[in-house]
Amino acid sequence: MNWRRIKFPIFLICFQVLFLLLFAVLGEYGEDARPKMPGDSAASVKLYPYFQDVHVMIFIGFGFLMTFLKRYGFGAVSINLLIAAFVIQWAFIVRGIIHSVAHGHGHAKFPIYLGEMLSADFAAATVLISFGAVLGKASPIQLIVMALIEVVLAQINEWIGLDIFGAVDIGESMYIHAFGAYFGLAVARVLYNDKYDEARSEGSVYHSDIFSMIGTVFLWIFWPSFNGGAADGDEQQRALINTYLSLAACTVVTFALSQLVDKRGKLNMVHVQNATLAGGVALGTSANMPLQPWVAMLIGCIAGTISVVGYQYLTPVLHSKLKIHDTCGVNNLHGMPGILAGLVGAIMAAMASTDGWGESVYEIFPLMIPMENSTEYASAVANFSVTAPGPGRSSTTQGGYQMLALVITLVIAIVGGALTGLLLRMPCFDNVDGKQMFDDREFFIVEGQGFPSNEEEAIEEGNDTKLRMLSD
Amino acid sequence: MNWRRIKFPIFLICFQVLFLLLFAVLGEYGEDARPKMPGDSAASVKLYPYFQDVHVMIFIGFGFLMTFLKRYGFGAVSINLLIAAFVIQWAFIVRGIIHSVAHGHGHAKFPIYLGEMLSADFAAATVLISFGAVLGKASPIQLIVMALIEVVLAQINEWIGLDIFGAVDIGESMYIHAFGAYFGLAVARVLYNDKYDEARSEGSVYHSDIFSMIGTVFLWIFWPSFNGGAADGDEQQRALINTYLSLAACTVVTFALSQLVDKRGKLNMVHVQNATLAGGVALGTSANMPLQPWVAMLIGCIAGTISVVGYQYLTPVLHSKLKIHDTCGVNNLHGMPGILAGLVGAIMAAMASTDGWGESVYEIFPLMIPMENSTEYASAVANFSVTAPGPGRSSTTQGGYQMLALVITLVIAIVGGALTGLLLRMPCFDNVDGKQMFDDREFFIVEGQGFPSNEEEAIEEGNDTKLRMLSD
Amino acid sequence: MNWRRIKFPIFLICFQVLFLLLFAVLGEYGEDARPKMPGDSAASVKLYPYFQDVHVMIFIGFGFLMTFLKRYGFGAVSINLLIAAFVIQWAFIVRGIIHSVAHGHGHAKFPIYLGEMLSADFAAATVLISFGAVLGKASPIQLIVMALIEVVLAQINEWIGLDIFGAVDIGESMYIHAFGAYFGLAVARVLYNDKYDEARSEGSVYHSDIFSMIGTVFLWIFWPSFNGGAADGDEQQRALINTYLSLAACTVVTFALSQLVDKRGKLNMVHVQNATLAGGVALGTSANMPLQPWVAMLIGCIAGTISVVGYQYLTPVLHSKLKIHDTCGVNNLHGMPGILAGLVGAIMAAMASTDGWGESVYEIFPLMIPMENSTEYASAVANFSVTAPGPGRSSTTQGGYQMLALVITLVIAIVGGALTGLLLRMPCFDNVDGKQMFDDREFFIVEGQGFPSNEEEAIEEGNDTKLRMLSD
Repeated sequence: MNWRRIKFPIFLICFQVLFLLLFAVLGEYGEDARPKMPGDSAASVKLYPYFQDVHVMIFIGFGFLMTFLKRYGFGAVSINLLIAAFVIQWAFIVRGIIHSVAHGHGHAKFPIYLGEMLSADFAAATVLISFGAVLGKASPIQLIVMALIEVVLAQINEWIGLDIFGAVDIGESMYIHAFGAYFGLAVARVLYNDKYDEARSEGSVYHSDIFSMIGTVFLWIFWPSFNGGAADGDEQQRALINTYLSLAACTVVTFALSQLVDKRGKLNMVHVQNATLAGGVALGTSANMPLQPWVAMLIGCIAGTISVVGYQYLTPVLHSKLKIHDTCGVNNLHGMPGILAGLVGAIMAAMASTDGWGESVYEIFPLMIPMENSTEYASAVANFSVTAPGPGRSSTTQGGYQMLALVITLVIAIVGGALTGLLLRMPCFDNVDGKQMFDDREFFIVEGQGFPSNEEEAIEEGNDTKLRMLSD
Repeated sequence: MNWRRIKFPIFLICFQVLFLLLFAVLGEYGEDARPKMPGDSAASVKLYPYFQDVHVMIFIGFGFLMTFLKRYGFGAVSINLLIAAFVIQWAFIVRGIIHSVAHGHGHAKFPIYLGEMLSADFAAATVLISFGAVLGKASPIQLIVMALIEVVLAQINEWIGLDIFGAVDIGESMYIHAFGAYFGLAVARVLYNDKYDEARSEGSVYHSDIFSMIGTVFLWIFWPSFNGGAADGDEQQRALINTYLSLAACTVVTFALSQLVDKRGKLNMVHVQNATLAGGVALGTSANMPLQPWVAMLIGCIAGTISVVGYQYLTPVLHSKLKIHDTCGVNNLHGMPGILAGLVGAIMAAMASTDGWGESVYEIFPLMIPMENSTEYASAVANFSVTAPGPGRSSTTQGGYQMLALVITLVIAIVGGALTGLLLRMPCFDNVDGKQMFDDREFFIVEGQGFPSNEEEAIEEGNDTKLRMLSD
Repeated sequence: MNWRRIKFPIFLICFQVLFLLLFAVLGEYGEDARPKMPGDSAASVKLYPYFQDVHVMIFIGFGFLMTFLKRYGFGAVSINLLIAAFVIQWAFIVRGIIHSVAHGHGHAKFPIYLGEMLSADFAAATVLISFGAVLGKASPIQLIVMALIEVVLAQINEWIGLDIFGAVDIGESMYIHAFGAYFGLAVARVLYNDKYDEARSEGSVYHSDIFSMIGTVFLWIFWPSFNGGAADGDEQQRALINTYLSLAACTVVTFALSQLVDKRGKLNMVHVQNATLAGGVALGTSANMPLQPWVAMLIGCIAGTISVVGYQYLTPVLHSKLKIHDTCGVNNLHGMPGILAGLVGAIMAAMASTDGWGESVYEIFPLMIPMENSTEYASAVANFSVTAPGPGRSSTTQGGYQMLALVITLVIAIVGGALTGLLLRMPCFDNVDGKQMFDDREFFIVEGQGFPSNEEEAIEEGNDTKLRMLSD
C-alpha cells in the first residue's frame, strides 16, 4: 500500500462527499433561480456577462499568469483549477453559515444563485493569490488545507468589514487582494527553509514567459468587470471607466520604470506580467466612489510605480533579510497595491459629500444615509448588522471605518496565515523542499521530452536525450 | 499537374460555391434580423453573450484542447477552424431543409438569425468531437466528407428526438456529445490499420500539454453557457448554476482519481485536460430539469469517475482488443458522460412532477402540458411534430421517450459512422497511415526549427540541426 | 548616466503626466456615467459585452497574432499592450478636442463613457495595424511617436469621412483597417534599409506559430462584435450575422487557396493565421447595409482570395521591388481587404433603396433622410456637420461620398505615414537595424534558456549551452 498515493485522493474525496452532504442539507436555489412562470424573468441574469469575465480571470488569468516558471507549468494551471473548483464549493457553505449565524434568523439554508457564484469566484481569487506566494513550494495537500482555512478567515474578515463596519470595497481590494497576499506571505514565511540553493528549477524560459502573458492580458482586459461587476447603473459604469483608465495609466508607467530600474535599460517581463495589473488592484476599493477620471489614472500611476519598485528592490530584500520567498511577487501585485486601494478608499470616503454627487453618495455608502431619510432607504440599510454607528454617519466616520477594515484585514491575514503555516509544517502534509521545489515531476507524470533541463542536471543525471545519445 | 495539390482545394471551392447558391436561393434573414423601425428592437440579441461564450468553446476550446499532440498542433487548431467554418454554413442549409420538409409548409426558405447561429455552432461541436476520435489519422478531405455526412445524420437524429419524440436536451449531451463521440469512434474503427507502431509522433511534449490547457480551461469556464444558453429566465439560471457546480465537483474528483489510479501516485495531464470537463457533458440533458444543486454535483462526481477510469483502463483495451484507436479519448469525455447525461435526463423526466415545481415543469417538458391547458400553452406545443403521444403525456411517458431518443442517437451514430468510415476508405480520400500519422508535415509547411524531433528519426534522417552540425 | 536607459522612460512619463493634466482639465464623465438616483439606469451598459469582445481583440487578438516571430514574442505581446494602453488615453483627448473644435460650441470638455471606451479601443486598433507593418524593425520610442501622430491623423480622417461626408463605416474598415495598413506601410517604406540580410531572426518556430493562432482565433471569434458592436437592434443583428457568415466563407476559401498556391500542395500557417480574417475586414463597411447573407459570404470569399494571393505573390514583390517590408503582411489582411470594404460600402450605398428595406435605410444612411421627414429624424441629422449635401441626398450621392471617404483615407494615410516615417528616422529615435531586428534581446531582458537560436549564431557566439558544454 502506497500511502502517498492514496492520502491526497482520500482527503479530496472526503471533502467532496462532505460538500455534497452540506449542499443537500443546507443548500437551496436563491429567489431568482426558483421555478417561476413565464414573464417573471430573473433580473440577476444580467450579471452573467460580468460573472463570466471574472470567471475567465480566475481560471485563465490566475492560472496562466503563474505558468512563467519553466518547470511548473502543469502545476500552475492545473492546481489553480483544482483549488478554484474546490474553493467555489466551500465558499458557498462558509458564506452561507456565516450569514445565517450573523443574521440570527431561523433560516439556516444558504442560497445558490448567480450573485453567490460571483462571490464564490471571488473567494477563489483570495486563495489563488496566496497560492502565488507559495507557488512551487507547497504540496497539493498543503494547498487544499490552506484553502480550507483561508476561506473561513477571509469570509469572516469580509463579514466584519462589510457588515459590521460598513466599509465598502466594490472590487474587494482589501478583502481579497490585500488579505490573500499577506495571508500567503505569512504562510510562505513559516514554510521557509534554507534549501533554496538546491532549487535550480526556479526561473522562466522564453516561451513560459509568453504563456504567462496569456494570463496577464486576460486579467488586464477583464479587470473592469472585477471592480464593477457587483455595482449597478451609473455607479457601475464609473467603476468600469475608472478601472480601465487606471490600468492604462499604470501600464505606461510600468514600462517606463521597468526600463529605468534596469542597468542596461531593458524591459523586464516580470514587470510587464505583473506591475501592469497593479492599477486594477489599487482602484478596487474606490472604483465606484466619488472621484474624477484623472484621479483614477493618478492612482494607477502610483500603483505601477510601487509595483515595479517592489519587484526590483523589495522582493530580494524580503527574501534575504526576512526569509520571505514570494514566488510570484504577490506583495507587489496584490499586497502593496491592495493597501494603497484601502487607503484611497478611506480618503475618498472621508471626502465624500453630496455636493456635486447628490444622493448617489448614499448608494455608495449606505450607512451615510441621514436618519431622516432612513425609511426611504430602508432596504439598503437592512443589509447591515448595524452595531457600528449608522445610519447617519458622517463621511469622516465612514473614512475611519474604511481604515479600520483595512487594519483588521491585515491583522487577520498575517496572524491567520502564520498559524496556518505552522499547521502546514506538520509532516503529514508532505512539505516540499530542495530539488523538489518548482518542479512538476514531483506531482505530475512528465514524460521527459521538451521538459526544460538544467545544465548541471543534464550533466549529473544524464537525462538530456541528445547528450546521452551523443555520448553513446 | 499535381493532382494532390488541387483535389482538396477544388473540392472545398465547389462546396463553397454550392453554399453561396443555396444561401442565395433559400436563405433569408429571420424575423428578428429583418429591417425594422427604431423601437422594434430585436429581443434575441440578449442571446449574443451566450452565443459568444459557445463560440469561444468551439474555436478556442476544441481547437486548443487538441493541440496536446507534440507534432500536430497546426493540424489541431487549424483544421478545427476549417471544419467549424465549413460546418456552420452547411448546418444552416441542412437544418433549413429538414425543418422545411418536416413542417410540410410551403415556405422552403431557411431563416438566418442569432438563434440559428448558436445551432450552427452546436452542429460544429458534433463534428469536432468526432474529429477528436480520428485526430491525426484522417486527411483534411476525409474530415470534410465526414462533416458533410455527419451534419445531415446528426440533424435528422436531433429532429427525431426533439420534434418527434419531444425528448428535450438543453445542452445537447445526447444529440451532440454522445452522437459525435460514437459516430467518430465508429469512423475510427473502420479506418483502423495495423501501422500504429510506425506512428512515432503520437504523444505530447511539455509545452504542448500547456497549450492544450488553454482549450480545457476555456471549455470549463464557458460550459454553463453551453448548457444554459438556449434556456430562459429562472430555468436558464438553474442550468447555469447546476453546470457550474457539476464541473466543480467533477474537477475535484478527477484530481483525486487521477492520482489514485497511477502507480507512482502522480497526476496525469490527460485526465486534467479532459475528465475535468465530463461534469459539463453529464449534466447537459438535465441542467434545466427539476433537480437540486447537490444532485448536479453528484452527477459531476460520477462523470469525473467514469472519465478517469475510462482513460486509464478502457481506452487501452478498446485499442488492443477492439481496434478502436481514440486519439483524444472522446469516449471518456463525450461518449460515456453523454450516455450518463441521457440516462439522468430520462430519470429526471420520469420523476418530474408539479409538486414544488408548479407549472414550470411544463416549460421544461412542453408535451406534459395537460390537454385542458393546451390552449394556454398553444405556442409551446405548436413547435412539435406531434406524432408521439402528447400533449398531456405523463412523466413516465416523457422519461420513456427520453430513453428512446438516447437509444436512437446511439444507433444512428454508430451505424452512420461505420458507413461513413467505409466511404472514407476509398483511395480517392487520401487515407493517412504509418509515419504520416500525427504529423503536421504531411499537410502543412513546417520549416523545421522547433519541431519536436523523435530520437530515432534524428538519427535516421539526420534532421536534427545540432546533431548534424556536431557530426560535421 | 546612461542616456539610452532614461530617454524612453522620461518620454513616457512626460506624456503620462500630460494625459493626467488634460484629463483633469478637459475630461468629464459622459451623461450616462454621471451620478444618478436609482432607477435612472445607464442604457449604454448594454454596450459592455460588445466592448469586452473588442477589448479581447485588441489586447489578446492583435498581441498574440504578432507572436509568430520566433524571437520577438516578448516584443509582440508586450509592446502591443504598451501601445494600446498609451493610445486609449491619447484617443480620448484627441477625439475630444476634434469634436469640440468641429462642433464649435463653447463646451470644451470631452466626455468619458462606455461608448468612448469603445472608440478608444478602435483607435488603438489603427495604430496596432501599423505596428504590424513595422514589427521588429522599430524601437519602442519610434512606435510611441508614431502612435501620437497617427491617432491625430486617423481621428481627423474619421471626422472628415464620417461627420463631413456622412460616409458611414460601421466596422471602420476604411477609417481603421485601410488607414492603419497604409499608414504603417508608408512608415515601413521610409524606414527601409538594406540590412535585411543580417536580420537572421525573422521567421517563426513551430510553437510560435501556435501562439499566433491564439490571436487569430480570438480575432475570428469576436469580429462580429467589432463590426456590429456600435450598431443597434435589427441592424446590429444583421451586422453580426453577415460578419459571421463572411468569415466562415472566407476561411474555407483561404484553406483551399493556401494549398493551391503551394507547389507541394501544403497549407501555409501564415495564410491560416491571417487570410482567414480578411472576411471580417472586407465586410466592415457594409455589415449593416442592405445586403443579403449570400452577398456577405461572397465578399468573404473574395477577401480570402485577395489575401492569400497577396501573401503569396504580392508581399515578396513589394519587398524586392518597392522596398516595402511588411512584417505581418498587413497589406493582405487589413490593406486590400479594407479597400475592398470601402468599395463594397460605396456600391451598397449607391444601390440602397427603401424598396424592401423601408425607412430602415434612413437609420443606416441618415443623410438620405428626405427633407420632408427631417424634423422626424432631427436627432439623427443633428450629429452631422452638414457641409456636404444632405439631408435628402440620393443613394448615388451617398455612394459617391463613400468613395470619396475611401480615397481621402488612403491619401491621408500614405502621406501622413511617409512624413511620420521621415520624422522617425531622426537619430534621437533609436532606429533599429541589422542584427537587432526581430530580436527581443535588444529591448528586453532575455535570460537565454529556450530562446530560439540561429545556427550560425550558435557557432559564432557560442551561446548555445549544449554546444558549449560539449566543446568543454
